[in-house]
Amino acid sequence: MPRTLKVAAAQMGPIHLTSKRPETLSRMLALLRTASKLGAQLVLFPETAFTTFFPRHLINSQEELDSYFEHEDNVPESANTKPLFDEAKTLGIDISIGFAERTADGKGYNTSIYFSAKKGEVIAKYRKVHLPGTKEPFANPDAVNQLEKRYFEPGNLGFKAFRTPDLIPGAAKKESGIKEHGKGDPIMGMMICNDRRWAEGWRCYGLQGVEIVLCGYNTAGFAPDLWGTRKPMIPEEAEKDAVFHHKLVMQGNSYMNSCFSISAAKAGLEDAKYDLIGGSCITSPEGHVLAEAKTKDDEVVFAEIDLEDCRQGKEKTFDFDRHRRVDQYGPITIQTGVVEPELL
Amino acid sequence: MPRTLKVAAAQMGPIHLTSKRPETLSRMLALLRTASKLGAQLVLFPETAFTTFFPRHLINSQEELDSYFEHEDNVPESANTKPLFDEAKTLGIDISIGFAERTADGKGYNTSIYFSAKKGEVIAKYRKVHLPGTKEPFANPDAVNQLEKRYFEPGNLGFKAFRTPDLIPGAAKKESGIKEHGKGDPIMGMMICNDRRWAEGWRCYGLQGVEIVLCGYNTAGFAPDLWGTRKPMIPEEAEKDAVFHHKLVMQGNSYMNSCFSISAAKAGLEDAKYDLIGGSCITSPEGHVLAEAKTKDDEVVFAEIDLEDCRQGKEKTFDFDRHRRVDQYGPITIQTGVVEPELL
Repeated sequence: MPRTLKVAAAQMGPIHLTSKRPETLSRMLALLRTASKLGAQLVLFPETAFTTFFPRHLINSQEELDSYFEHEDNVPESANTKPLFDEAKTLGIDISIGFAERTADGKGYNTSIYFSAKKGEVIAKYRKVHLPGTKEPFANPDAVNQLEKRYFEPGNLGFKAFRTPDLIPGAAKKESGIKEHGKGDPIMGMMICNDRRWAEGWRCYGLQGVEIVLCGYNTAGFAPDLWGTRKPMIPEEAEKDAVFHHKLVMQGNSYMNSCFSISAAKAGLEDAKYDLIGGSCITSPEGHVLAEAKTKDDEVVFAEIDLEDCRQGKEKTFDFDRHRRVDQYGPITIQTGVVEPELL
Repeated sequence: MPRTLKVAAAQMGPIHLTSKRPETLSRMLALLRTASKLGAQLVLFPETAFTTFFPRHLINSQEELDSYFEHEDNVPESANTKPLFDEAKTLGIDISIGFAERTADGKGYNTSIYFSAKKGEVIAKYRKVHLPGTKEPFANPDAVNQLEKRYFEPGNLGFKAFRTPDLIPGAAKKESGIKEHGKGDPIMGMMICNDRRWAEGWRCYGLQGVEIVLCGYNTAGFAPDLWGTRKPMIPEEAEKDAVFHHKLVMQGNSYMNSCFSISAAKAGLEDAKYDLIGGSCITSPEGHVLAEAKTKDDEVVFAEIDLEDCRQGKEKTFDFDRHRRVDQYGPITIQTGVVEPELL
């Protein structure tokens, strides 16, 4: 029996330090309505979707910094975010979206949530585990900073997959007693930007039978190389390579975990000079790109998918129970950094 | 300082149940000489390179079965294999090659070894961890069996990276006291066929600073679907997809572990009717295919690579020490199969 679902990535063009929140919100509402007209049941928005990607800036004023964050208890209720969730509820569309989260005890996280339209509430939260960049800004003024390690703590909620209710008619419920794979509500997992390059997160989701991985991102197309580790590249080539890497990891990890993926970029030239890649896409459990963004601006990427397509991989080539050999994987969870074989 | 290396995959066309060992050996010698003319310092041969891919057959005679194996102590000394290693030594080319291995206590392994021409001996051995297929043959006579789980034990040597001596002039030695990455002899790791689809093996090697992953394979282009889990495919499409998946995992995992990879197929129509894909290739730490086979027959795939290209990934995006979060990866080494979130 097919388990079809209509899903979308809401790619967003640039949002600037100077952008007004209501303007950004109305762009989001327009994207949501466009997706609704296509019949979308689920729409993914980017990482830190409500603001510019502020970790590229060194922000010393706590007040300014806080203006890019939402309080952990205030989403979806804050004035900055409520209209989006209200519209999602009205349209009957589930949404997943990223934002900078400030906890009651003052900690920052790069967070993503899943809002169920039917339930009218947030049913899952994820905090980015793989924070890229540095804590301290570069001394070189030409360098492009990436200060996520300064503003955020590494995520502490693990990679916890969850079921999303009422998207597929007739999906089995707990009381039905049905336990077989593929009979219940869709199983999803969230990750954020850089997480997608780390096979560990994907595998943690794969081990929970994930059917769709959701990943919002802000990815630089080009930054001058101040590390001295890279052969010189012209910006156009660097951006092409960045899109290639994005798609490669979405495709490869979808295939190796037999799941669909949806990825949504914030794209284009933010804050006048920082170029972000587009490339928002939807990939299949066989690793193919089913749909992808054509622009670097606000754009809905849409596909109708059948979760049954996960079965081939999950039950045969990637039947974990039959094929995984955890006794051989020890170093993955006990060794953080590299230990090279000794010099001969 | 560049650390260049000339490497090759020796793709082999079909070898049949009826093929004579000396014929197969002379094809290997021809491939080795072709690679030598190109200047290759290292040549990778396929999985079970000396024989047909016999696990597709149900073989009840122990004597016949044993004829496809080499005794663990006999490689490279056995008459079946010696001429290849002698020639490698003469030409001064390191080789890595796969064969079915029988241990003194009668166990079978799907094995790969690394032979150093300079040392004139085998310096590393790997036994395939991820055995695909089933222990019992299919009841349906139209099914294509894959009986690796019947004939082999899962590999018990882990994913142990090793340095390969005397390939790069001036590489630092133990007594030099130099410890920094990229100064010593190349760091390599072996995997076999299906292993390449499992990110865990790649990461175990990545955690040892691997610079080149070697992977021989025998991969079916098309087998009738008797699992009922797959949408019907025509053979040409299935084969195209199998090559796509092969390249996707070589590219994706090379990128995510900042290493080169070399893969060598046994390709073409074996034993009259079993089609194997080609697609032998060399990939870069940025995930690009640098060279790939054009045929499904005996063919040398060659590239000159610079191990310095691993640094960008290893020291920045994939600096494991700074970015990996082992506290969040727990399930990977303690949970073999899937545990789905409960039905809502």
